[in-house]
Amino acid sequence: MTESDSSLDWKTRAAQRKQAQLDSIPSEWILHDLRLESENVMDVPEKCGLLSARELEITNTTDVEVILKKLSNSEWSSVDVTRAFYKRAIIAQQLTNCLTEIFVERALDRAKELDDILRRTGKVVGPLHGLPVSLKDQFTMKGLETIMGYVAWIGRYAKSDCVLVEMLYDCGAVPFVRTNVPQTLMWGETYNHVFGRTSNPYNRRLTAGGSSGGEGALVAMKGSPLGVGTDIGGSLRIPSAFCGLYTLRPSYERLPYYGATNALEGQESISSVLGPMTNSITGLKIFVKAIIDSQPWKRDPLVVRKEWSEKEYQLAFHGGGSPLCFAIMWDNGVVKPHPPLRRAMVMTKGALEAAGHRVIDWEPHRHLEIYKNSETIFVADGGEDYRTECERSGEPLIKSMISEDDGHEPIVEKPFVNHLVGESYHRSAYQLWELHKEKRQLRKSHLDYWEATVHRTGTGRPVDGIISPAVAYPAVPHGLNTDSFYTTLCNAMDYTTSVFPVTSVDTELDHPHDPHEFYNYEDEAVYKLYDSGLFQGCPVGLQLIGRTQEEEAVIRMTEIIDTALKENKRINTETDTK
Amino acid sequence: MTESDSSLDWKTRAAQRKQAQLDSIPSEWILHDLRLESENVMDVPEKCGLLSARELEITNTTDVEVILKKLSNSEWSSVDVTRAFYKRAIIAQQLTNCLTEIFVERALDRAKELDDILRRTGKVVGPLHGLPVSLKDQFTMKGLETIMGYVAWIGRYAKSDCVLVEMLYDCGAVPFVRTNVPQTLMWGETYNHVFGRTSNPYNRRLTAGGSSGGEGALVAMKGSPLGVGTDIGGSLRIPSAFCGLYTLRPSYERLPYYGATNALEGQESISSVLGPMTNSITGLKIFVKAIIDSQPWKRDPLVVRKEWSEKEYQLAFHGGGSPLCFAIMWDNGVVKPHPPLRRAMVMTKGALEAAGHRVIDWEPHRHLEIYKNSETIFVADGGEDYRTECERSGEPLIKSMISEDDGHEPIVEKPFVNHLVGESYHRSAYQLWELHKEKRQLRKSHLDYWEATVHRTGTGRPVDGIISPAVAYPAVPHGLNTDSFYTTLCNAMDYTTSVFPVTSVDTELDHPHDPHEFYNYEDEAVYKLYDSGLFQGCPVGLQLIGRTQEEEAVIRMTEIIDTALKENKRINTETDTK
Repeated sequence: MTESDSSLDWKTRAAQRKQAQLDSIPSEWILHDLRLESENVMDVPEKCGLLSARELEITNTTDVEVILKKLSNSEWSSVDVTRAFYKRAIIAQQLTNCLTEIFVERALDRAKELDDILRRTGKVVGPLHGLPVSLKDQFTMKGLETIMGYVAWIGRYAKSDCVLVEMLYDCGAVPFVRTNVPQTLMWGETYNHVFGRTSNPYNRRLTAGGSSGGEGALVAMKGSPLGVGTDIGGSLRIPSAFCGLYTLRPSYERLPYYGATNALEGQESISSVLGPMTNSITGLKIFVKAIIDSQPWKRDPLVVRKEWSEKEYQLAFHGGGSPLCFAIMWDNGVVKPHPPLRRAMVMTKGALEAAGHRVIDWEPHRHLEIYKNSETIFVADGGEDYRTECERSGEPLIKSMISEDDGHEPIVEKPFVNHLVGESYHRSAYQLWELHKEKRQLRKSHLDYWEATVHRTGTGRPVDGIISPAVAYPAVPHGLNTDSFYTTLCNAMDYTTSVFPVTSVDTELDHPHDPHEFYNYEDEAVYKLYDSGLFQGCPVGLQLIGRTQEEEAVIRMTEIIDTALKENKRINTETDTK
Repeated sequence: MTESDSSLDWKTRAAQRKQAQLDSIPSEWILHDLRLESENVMDVPEKCGLLSARELEITNTTDVEVILKKLSNSEWSSVDVTRAFYKRAIIAQQLTNCLTEIFVERALDRAKELDDILRRTGKVVGPLHGLPVSLKDQFTMKGLETIMGYVAWIGRYAKSDCVLVEMLYDCGAVPFVRTNVPQTLMWGETYNHVFGRTSNPYNRRLTAGGSSGGEGALVAMKGSPLGVGTDIGGSLRIPSAFCGLYTLRPSYERLPYYGATNALEGQESISSVLGPMTNSITGLKIFVKAIIDSQPWKRDPLVVRKEWSEKEYQLAFHGGGSPLCFAIMWDNGVVKPHPPLRRAMVMTKGALEAAGHRVIDWEPHRHLEIYKNSETIFVADGGEDYRTECERSGEPLIKSMISEDDGHEPIVEKPFVNHLVGESYHRSAYQLWELHKEKRQLRKSHLDYWEATVHRTGTGRPVDGIISPAVAYPAVPHGLNTDSFYTTLCNAMDYTTSVFPVTSVDTELDHPHDPHEFYNYEDEAVYKLYDSGLFQGCPVGLQLIGRTQEEEAVIRMTEIIDTALKENKRINTETDTK
């Protein structure tokens, strides 16, 4: 595929590129005669027979710290680890369509290079030595295309690595595969005309979320120990919640985005940020610390010059961590969470209290105003950016994530966000400045509101972190994901936010709520969507919201919550079996 | 003066407000029968007889560290110190027209409160206990007007303090007077229809610079030990250079701007920043550290959560400081500096080399592209912001800083910046995003260029700091200041930058250069402007450019340069007198 093919019609170009992707898969990794028992394909890698016992042992090791240790002491070679995860990634691809760029030889060559260095010198190259890392289809790698969901971008071979990839190489990582995104990036699902749609491995009739949905499905299937996605309104957190992963949405410009492609490039009012997605709680700190320790401000002029602070990680500004006081936002007043989300919050509250922490309630503050301001900023160009990229190839702008054969309709005729923001149009620079003024005032108001909780916590400090749903429901059928009300708050306020898995939907426990007084028509539609059968077994995650540029503290508090939840489950299991 | 007066014509409103300012001066502080020997009024405070010996002793103490020590050990009371500086400020006002809001009783009450606390508790309130601090006319104080150079803003009484003022109170400071600005703030001089024009105390026919020109004149006359100004294109550095002061232009959002009024509010592409202006090298660290130690991110949502780093102040990322390698930008290729600036750079190079540091040359990199990008962003609203504020009262937009009785013409028919940028018009949000993309690429290019100096320094590091003129000339006659080419670079790249005084113009030494091949018509006009007689005795300062968010390191390196210069002067003086 070369740039000269741009004379072809967009459907032909897309089909050719998709075929080229298929051709890039080693034939011995193709799944044949697959008889699936259900649309939950999580167990296929174990059962399909493609992975050896050793490859299963490697890929079932989700703890990034453990993988890195086995790599650094040469118990595992990077070639073996990379090949094992690559095979599993290719299995995941055939089941969920999560990948874009596949480059097996290149990744294995890199892994071999690292193995050789370690053998020769006895030293690791860096803190991520030998670790395969998957990348959302925005992180350019020299010599590979970066298609990012646009037909017009087929054949765009990168002349250099983006800064993140440069630093991953310096850290000893093995960037080994790239993952799917929606056209425009501005959807909470994952579908485009080139690579198609990514499904949720827990139930392929459901979305994996988006826009980092390829990572969501891939990492959930253990096809990658750690992926890197991005987030401008929930794009790390929605797929992480839907797929049962950990993630961290850092603050603007803490990690290096320079050189990665993006939608709405130059829109700096609410910056997209990058972060890790992983099955491993240890993965959050390892990734973030590795990148920050590499001094990204030397390569990306926008990155905040702030070293990794072990002092902040030890919660110096949170009383050393004992006890903490969390606040739970049970409901943001825009869309009421589904029953499994409520149960997850109850479980988390119980676990934290059992661990000696305090938990109080969080009443939402100007939530809808904040949301509206952000969404208005996102369309301040009147859609010019999307139109321009689509017009380059003639492909149409995608208006819905539902496809014809889904057999269902949208839950609302017009998403509530469109109702709120109104028709988008070319705003002037002056009008954008007016939105900035409003945003700044909203941030100040929310900050003051948070600070004022000092009178309610009993710790002498304001609330240490807010716990809330990331999305009001577990993963929904394709095309029905409309809620970014919980996530966008954090992008607007620039709050550091993690997502952590809590439980999975259990219809025995998660009975429908009685109807409430609906906040708006979308809230009503979301309420009606709840159907225990549909969601059964889906992961349920929550988000932890910390302050701006509190990456260290939010990671540590997420670890504390995770430990408390695991400890509580252990006790409950012991009690159950007695 | 109340808001109801807005029915009056703008000239009447302005005149009434100016009269009210005059009426706010205690009558015993009025200078009578003043016979000035020259337009250099720097010696008037000493000679006018208004200040007692003790008041002269206090106000001639320029070292902020010394003043704070005498306040904290009760050798001086805050009331005495505040009154002494206030009297000198009022003298400065009568000579240079540097003030806006005058509130003697309120400031003395505050000083008394601090004295009482110290007497009662034996403890200082904070690190700035008792110190009078003057504020540019943007920093709102509850109950006072904030006019900021617009007639329409007469009668706008602030309902609360801006965050900076809140923190100054917490630190124990005494905000005691506010200082003049130009209409729109976007001039390198200081003139508006309400308070008139601020002159340079070294020669009142010359401008004090701007937009923090009120602070420049006031602090130069020792009417304030430390003032706070702002900078979006040079507004701290131009008056500091013209008036012989130290200043620091911090990076975006390191110090709290929230609640201060501003021009082009909501324009966040190139943020205005606040910083100290002072006669005292110790003042820079004391002020910046005091504010950062107060955790401004708890009150201003935009402030970077980064503690004061003693490690960075000790130059941990600059080899511990011995030896450093500086680069001198002798000429930016847009406007060639006047002879005294060149001599200041030669002096600084010599002093640094004598102190054991290395000094190499800096070739400008894409300087004009960067400048053009910034200036285009500043007018992206097509002038809407200025027009709107002027229309509120009917006052005309000021088009030139020259007044009718100056007796001279502009040096160029149309400033080079206007020629570069073209007619301003309402740009769309999408067009602004395009400018952001360009800016980001320029920042990356400049960063890479700087990093690449690692091969030339001999220290194993890139250049530690760049030394250059802040402005191509010493202070010029009113209305003739056109150069912000040296300063705007730092706002665009967000480089932390200080200004420090080096020498003063000496016609015996600073002979005109031979004409060079002119870079553009403004460069030619600036060349022709040089006239030793006009500039004689004016201060000459330079700027030190460091990296983004390197406040600590830039302060320390400025101290090192200052010490080297003083040491060199001492040696030269000793040599001269032998």
